[in-house]
Amino acid sequence: METMKRTKIRELLASKEIGKEVNVKGWVRTKRGNKNVAFIALNDGSTIHSIQIVIDVAGFNPDDLKLVTTGACINVNGILVESQGSGQAVEIQATTLEVYGTADADTYPLQKKGHTLEFLREIAHLRPRTNTFGAVLRVRHNMAYAIHKYFNDRGFFYLHTPIITGSDAEGAGAMFKVTALDLDNLPRTEEGAINYKEDFFGKSTNLTVSGQLEGELGAMALSEIYTFGPTFRAENSNTPRHLAEFWMIEPEVAFYDIKDNMDLAEDFIKYLVKYALENCKDDLEFLNKMYDNELIERLTFVTNNAFKRLTYTEAVEILLASGQKFEFPVAWGIDLQSEHERYLVEKVFNCPVILTDYPKEIKHSI
Amino acid sequence: METMKRTKIRELLASKEIGKEVNVKGWVRTKRGNKNVAFIALNDGSTIHSIQIVIDVAGFNPDDLKLVTTGACINVNGILVESQGSGQAVEIQATTLEVYGTADADTYPLQKKGHTLEFLREIAHLRPRTNTFGAVLRVRHNMAYAIHKYFNDRGFFYLHTPIITGSDAEGAGAMFKVTALDLDNLPRTEEGAINYKEDFFGKSTNLTVSGQLEGELGAMALSEIYTFGPTFRAENSNTPRHLAEFWMIEPEVAFYDIKDNMDLAEDFIKYLVKYALENCKDDLEFLNKMYDNELIERLTFVTNNAFKRLTYTEAVEILLASGQKFEFPVAWGIDLQSEHERYLVEKVFNCPVILTDYPKEIKHSI
Repeated sequence: METMKRTKIRELLASKEIGKEVNVKGWVRTKRGNKNVAFIALNDGSTIHSIQIVIDVAGFNPDDLKLVTTGACINVNGILVESQGSGQAVEIQATTLEVYGTADADTYPLQKKGHTLEFLREIAHLRPRTNTFGAVLRVRHNMAYAIHKYFNDRGFFYLHTPIITGSDAEGAGAMFKVTALDLDNLPRTEEGAINYKEDFFGKSTNLTVSGQLEGELGAMALSEIYTFGPTFRAENSNTPRHLAEFWMIEPEVAFYDIKDNMDLAEDFIKYLVKYALENCKDDLEFLNKMYDNELIERLTFVTNNAFKRLTYTEAVEILLASGQKFEFPVAWGIDLQSEHERYLVEKVFNCPVILTDYPKEIKHSI
Repeated sequence: METMKRTKIRELLASKEIGKEVNVKGWVRTKRGNKNVAFIALNDGSTIHSIQIVIDVAGFNPDDLKLVTTGACINVNGILVESQGSGQAVEIQATTLEVYGTADADTYPLQKKGHTLEFLREIAHLRPRTNTFGAVLRVRHNMAYAIHKYFNDRGFFYLHTPIITGSDAEGAGAMFKVTALDLDNLPRTEEGAINYKEDFFGKSTNLTVSGQLEGELGAMALSEIYTFGPTFRAENSNTPRHLAEFWMIEPEVAFYDIKDNMDLAEDFIKYLVKYALENCKDDLEFLNKMYDNELIERLTFVTNNAFKRLTYTEAVEILLASGQKFEFPVAWGIDLQSEHERYLVEKVFNCPVILTDYPKEIKHSI
């Protein structure tokens, strides 16, 4: 089969070059048709949308066509033509077809029907091929890129703070221990304690819970820095607050007052949401349809409206006056719980909320 | 002191707005002068260059001026004026001065004289304020941004592959163990082995040596992905190959042949070097002057010339015919050492070199 430069499906679907000879490669989502014509929905991950490949059965080797099942990887040359069906502007009239890899229809786990997230968790090696994980991974990529672009455009410097650390930041949470010692044969001091002087770094080390302290040192030299790297908590909990491993963004800035900090946070979040709406439209539409019908409406609202800013004391007064029955009763001096924060955001203000002037006693750790 | 929006020194030095009232904040590099006038070199990390602040001593509180020593943090309002001295286009004629933070001249470790890298290693909290580390951190930031921009512009997706992992990739090296177990009280199985079922993830885990395997799964769904994250080796060595913790870039691509791979690598490196030459000129000029007089010349050469591509067999023949005495003797079938690679790059071709067609026996691990 002759070599032609591959075009990604994202570009093909946006192309106006009807009649052009193109090459496309990807993974089969579905195949249907009859004894004369076959229709293949082909996806290459560049977009959530598949492109339709039209096969005039008579012109192809029936043994090849039999191998074109859901999950198979194929290489197609063809002509870009206007689509006869609805839902797409263009399709490809295939001229040649090569099967790169097969997927046994009896055992390949991703069939056309929808799958639960619990099931997909068990096939983590294949789930990037699903619409849901494809959409999430593309949105996540775009958000990571937008984070870097936002800070770079404003003169912030990206700092890679240490992952393995002897510091525990501000006591932010339970830490994972990192060691190169042989756990079956731990070296001991004369007193019988584990002798970390013999460990890789000559002392006990952990995975970072925050790059904040190193970030602050960077800001005290470079004015405005940010970190964006993996962070860890050895907390055996299923709350939505902390995963065991997650990527965290921490700007650290010199010469900012609290209003500057709030302005930065609000502008940053609006920038990211706007970037997602502009660059991830197809994926957000899918997530809006399948997971959260108010997603796009809510994101649009965030970009168009000022965040509400009020003091902790004002928030407590609103909560006390609400007559709402909370699991954790409200009183001035308590640390606010998720239920309180959600009530303020979802019931009172219907927008992002920034609380300031907390009692210092409950803000001694992050 | 009235509030005026701060301008970064990088912008001030490029400004043509002579006569404009400006605010600048930063850290004092030096102060010199006489009883009538003082000259402060102020740096804020936005650029390697400091801006000169001119103080007419008579108009300022002598107690404030005494506190303006190397390392002090100050806030200055003034007028941007054409510089009388050489080496800079503009300076600031100060109208007000506020000392945010002092630095004791007797104990502040960063004085005007040069410091050894070994000394700076011991004051890691302050070294981002030096020209050398400022330059390195700004270049590193720009390279990280260029890496993301390069891949984003070409439709690659950024994947965050796991840092804590139960996999050992391709056996790439010694791994750090990650555990939430109490090492002083390790749980044991009935047979007396450490019972990792009681550890955080229910099994023994390590820090990743490569995101490659997860990256390949991403590429088999999204076509072109890259990773850019921290990677670890518990190798107690001082070779330049692997730090204990380093950030690694790994593109993984579907549908590429070896020529596509080489083209990507060459184009990527040239893009980054060109980006550095265009965006980090001042910092590279400093490094060129202080550390490596051929740096800019070599970088420019890399952007302008094709990489040399040849086979392992051709390289071995060149090395054998060289008459060169190597520490590790050359023969077909050996894995090439740094001294062989450097000879090819530095003595034979004087440019980046890509070797292909290695004997598969020596390429079973990365």
